[in-house]
Amino acid sequence: MTNDLPLTKDMILDAAEQVLRRYGPDKTSVTDIAKFLQVSHGTLYRHFASKAALRESVTERWLDKSIAEPLEEVANTSEGSAEEQLRLWLETLIKKKRMYAVDDAEMFVMYGDVTLASGDMITMHINRLMKQIALIIERGMRMGEFKPGSADAIARAVFLATLIFHHPSHAHEWASERIDEDFNTVWQLLLSGIK
Amino acid sequence: MTNDLPLTKDMILDAAEQVLRRYGPDKTSVTDIAKFLQVSHGTLYRHFASKAALRESVTERWLDKSIAEPLEEVANTSEGSAEEQLRLWLETLIKKKRMYAVDDAEMFVMYGDVTLASGDMITMHINRLMKQIALIIERGMRMGEFKPGSADAIARAVFLATLIFHHPSHAHEWASERIDEDFNTVWQLLLSGIK
Repeated sequence: MTNDLPLTKDMILDAAEQVLRRYGPDKTSVTDIAKFLQVSHGTLYRHFASKAALRESVTERWLDKSIAEPLEEVANTSEGSAEEQLRLWLETLIKKKRMYAVDDAEMFVMYGDVTLASGDMITMHINRLMKQIALIIERGMRMGEFKPGSADAIARAVFLATLIFHHPSHAHEWASERIDEDFNTVWQLLLSGIK
Repeated sequence: MTNDLPLTKDMILDAAEQVLRRYGPDKTSVTDIAKFLQVSHGTLYRHFASKAALRESVTERWLDKSIAEPLEEVANTSEGSAEEQLRLWLETLIKKKRMYAVDDAEMFVMYGDVTLASGDMITMHINRLMKQIALIIERGMRMGEFKPGSADAIARAVFLATLIFHHPSHAHEWASERIDEDFNTVWQLLLSGIK
């Protein structure tokens, strides 16, 4: 039996996310997702050229929803000190990554794999996050709270220098007792370079 | 035929390194190393409790020789500016990691695996490197070149904040065109926190 409703990209991604969560990213096939949607796998391939492309799209949407959008809210605030805002932004990123690594393990593992495989989508995601940091840095500079300089360069440096706390390849280190103290140590040095 | 010479730890590690380089870390068995040494694998197990312990010892010696010792020389210099010394130390670490990732790929892959598996040995290696950074930072503070502060904390922050440039999990990113520019961006921010 096949479904007569026209398939939208979002319907496919919703189904893929559910099936990936149920079977795990390694065991899920395009056929599993097609079955779940009650369509032929040929129909799916008309929307996504490969399993890799489908995994990338699922990850892209997941990163937007669970990471980039909530952080956007923090970056767009224009109250309080920029120092506190920057620290809140970083802590929100780190807290969310840690939470998803445990509570949404299937999606997180897939995101880790996709990070190693698909450069362009991840580069776009990272650029979006760096732009948010730059917004906060610019605000701090405007208010005279931060030293003048290139907000984009400083934002990139802040993101790269805190990688151990949010890059999926380091997820196994986030359970360390020392991790919060380490973040604070790095934060103090970065802050003393920014202020 | 078995060899009558008493086996030293260094003889085993020399043999293991040769065999691991020849067959690759995944395909090498303890039996391969025993055969190479013309001893029974029982004899080998008297020195190393497991294949994992043997791999860890080979990696430990390799890290000492190829990373920690050459960097020790840089850290022990007491001429010139501490800023230049710190930059040279970091650039030496980064250059060596990049070189070994390409020119000694088998050992480097094994080192990457061991980094994920054996916490204590890697922690000791990292502590040794952080102590070297602290020595340079202390010198800079003594000379009034760097702001006063906790040299140990700053050293740890510098090491962690530059992780993307020297941690084996990021080796696939070192071929990026942007990597030297990125190091410079992070370096500038760290330096402006230290000076």
